[in-house]
Amino acid sequence: MRIGILGVGTVGASVANILKDNKDIITARAGVELEPVIGLVNNLNKERNVSIKLTTDVDEILNDESIDIIVELMGGIEKPYEVVKKALEKGKAVVTANKALLAYHRYELQDLAGDTPFEYEAAVAGGIPIINALRDGLTANHIESIRGIMNGTCNYMLTKMINEGVDYHTILAEAQELGYAEADPTFDVGGFDAAHKLLILGSIAYGIDAKPEDILIEGIENIAPADIDFASEFNYSIKLLTIAKKVGTKIELRVHPVLISNDEMIAKVDGVMNGVSVIGDKVGETMYYGPGAGGDATASAVIANIVDIARRGKGSPMLGFESSHGENLTLMPKEEIQTKYYLRLKIEDKAGVLAKVSNIFADKNISIEKMIQKPLKNNCAHLLLSTHTCIEKDINEALKTLEDTSVVTDKPVMIRIED
Amino acid sequence: MRIGILGVGTVGASVANILKDNKDIITARAGVELEPVIGLVNNLNKERNVSIKLTTDVDEILNDESIDIIVELMGGIEKPYEVVKKALEKGKAVVTANKALLAYHRYELQDLAGDTPFEYEAAVAGGIPIINALRDGLTANHIESIRGIMNGTCNYMLTKMINEGVDYHTILAEAQELGYAEADPTFDVGGFDAAHKLLILGSIAYGIDAKPEDILIEGIENIAPADIDFASEFNYSIKLLTIAKKVGTKIELRVHPVLISNDEMIAKVDGVMNGVSVIGDKVGETMYYGPGAGGDATASAVIANIVDIARRGKGSPMLGFESSHGENLTLMPKEEIQTKYYLRLKIEDKAGVLAKVSNIFADKNISIEKMIQKPLKNNCAHLLLSTHTCIEKDINEALKTLEDTSVVTDKPVMIRIED
Repeated sequence: MRIGILGVGTVGASVANILKDNKDIITARAGVELEPVIGLVNNLNKERNVSIKLTTDVDEILNDESIDIIVELMGGIEKPYEVVKKALEKGKAVVTANKALLAYHRYELQDLAGDTPFEYEAAVAGGIPIINALRDGLTANHIESIRGIMNGTCNYMLTKMINEGVDYHTILAEAQELGYAEADPTFDVGGFDAAHKLLILGSIAYGIDAKPEDILIEGIENIAPADIDFASEFNYSIKLLTIAKKVGTKIELRVHPVLISNDEMIAKVDGVMNGVSVIGDKVGETMYYGPGAGGDATASAVIANIVDIARRGKGSPMLGFESSHGENLTLMPKEEIQTKYYLRLKIEDKAGVLAKVSNIFADKNISIEKMIQKPLKNNCAHLLLSTHTCIEKDINEALKTLEDTSVVTDKPVMIRIED
Repeated sequence: MRIGILGVGTVGASVANILKDNKDIITARAGVELEPVIGLVNNLNKERNVSIKLTTDVDEILNDESIDIIVELMGGIEKPYEVVKKALEKGKAVVTANKALLAYHRYELQDLAGDTPFEYEAAVAGGIPIINALRDGLTANHIESIRGIMNGTCNYMLTKMINEGVDYHTILAEAQELGYAEADPTFDVGGFDAAHKLLILGSIAYGIDAKPEDILIEGIENIAPADIDFASEFNYSIKLLTIAKKVGTKIELRVHPVLISNDEMIAKVDGVMNGVSVIGDKVGETMYYGPGAGGDATASAVIANIVDIARRGKGSPMLGFESSHGENLTLMPKEEIQTKYYLRLKIEDKAGVLAKVSNIFADKNISIEKMIQKPLKNNCAHLLLSTHTCIEKDINEALKTLEDTSVVTDKPVMIRIED
């Protein structure tokens, strides 16, 4: 089978090189030779460590009838969308690692593909074969929840903040220097990259069609040393978690920092590594751990898809099943989400303040679980507290009221607790 | 498709019940109804929580041409061997969770099966889809090593010994009371159960045909509080690890307790849970975590195989590839294994002893890394030490010499260090 690679950056070059380096074993496994023959680039003069032919003309690849599989690694959304559509219309199999493309267009592209293979293992959690596990390994189970650490930048930063007490801005600068964070880090630290991956898993597990703007996305920008202290005090870690969870016939999809018990396996995923914990109604918890990024690791997942296409000759269904299984699942509105919450309030340190704050919680039926008050300078104090399970809408209203109260001097900070 | 279940114990009943409970989603995923129709039992009068027809006559099931898939959960080796052969000869697909059967007969049965599906995801690490990951998820990679915690009994006991300082015999009695260990615990604590699973993974990753008696198997029976103390002192955990590792063209297969750094993800797998860490030459480390036993968890893996058979209609190759890929891999002889070692020696506490012991190591070119000497009663002391990497044969000879030396008063204890 002949392969065209659209985009010959780090991952594209790895795909070409691994197909060459490990040709012996990959051919044996696929049952057929898989040959990368051409790559699409923007600039023919740039030095690239690959031995395939390069072109700047995408149509040269799409119109080549000898090419069976297109690997899309272009980046962006609208351009690859047009190109992938064209490739599928020509009956070429497509493998993509483009999570942004999938976050917006996965349903249309899957529909268009029909029986033509359209695969994207590498788009979620890099080298970890998590889509494979969901589609093939856990087929006996209704999926109760999927919790993922799927952004290495955030996890690297949070791990450093917790283990070494470094503050957010210092560690961001360090991550940028090491190449773990972009010059504009918003896509990572704001939770958007993780959200794209979550939307893909939400489709595979539940068939939920949602776009990034439909779901709860919060980043790690507001986490401060006081929060780390509270977490350590009560045996929590802080992680940017992606959560897909079935609650009745509603599906929660959310990305936000959480306090999570150090006893949970997913809380032990540190540094740039990724992890995805899946709870099935029969198997219980299984977890999948590995590198979420990097050229060779991502290419490993791309090639797993290519081998699978060579073996099966047809596409996998988008969902983990061949046809809808009749459950009418809908996206849970953000404000209906129920969880526990951690709050950091800066308050005036004087009589009556605690009563005032407590009344605001009581009015919304929010019950406090743990509380620490720590004196600050200038007659102020930090009130750090965790709640029992309550409703997102109630917490948001309480936070609004607190913010408007004169005894609370700064905007309150809220982090959810994953239980 | 109609399914016959040979052996309706905990796992067999779970298979029948999950196929019923989750029929909606399993049918949707498989694209066809999967119906458990009959079960083989020894005793028809025993109360069983299943609604399928039961029989004591295996031929009633094997001769029923309407039955497409046989699930073998009989236990033992020779009887299921005969039955599985008969089923495959009749062209019935076979799914088994019987690791002992596979440890001895996997190659013959796979050969006999040919294109008829013969699958065994549940035989290794229970509910974790590790065979699926190796066969489908990591196809781009040469597998460099597989390290597994695949015996829940041992891991439960070792976790308790480390976290709570309980000694071996106390925790064994507790595990037996809780049903985590058998009345005769040898099969688990001696490492044999883990070895059976390792042999299966060794075949899938490397095509190595070996039997339990060909490989290094040691159990956890000799681990004492002094070893736990040494491990804690130097940030190690103690685990019963199964190791399959490629060293040149030789494959190490071994099961034994190890000291392993607490920083490694596999060292964080605690209690009855299982974990398997795989290092691929391109993806790096991925790890798979979940329940290694239990009726529903094991049945989840059995059913994943059944769904796969329904979808693909043909068997997976035993190895992760369609034909041999031409590498001539052989089993590494036990005595050639190289690793680091931890030793516990009970010595006389007097002048010249350390020199004597040191000379024995020096004679075998064994270099010491860390050492602790702790006084005991009666003018004795514990000498706890770790070595740099050396050869199994040299360590064994040194241990023999130490044992014969008068200043070493007890049989020395050795635990390998996984690095």
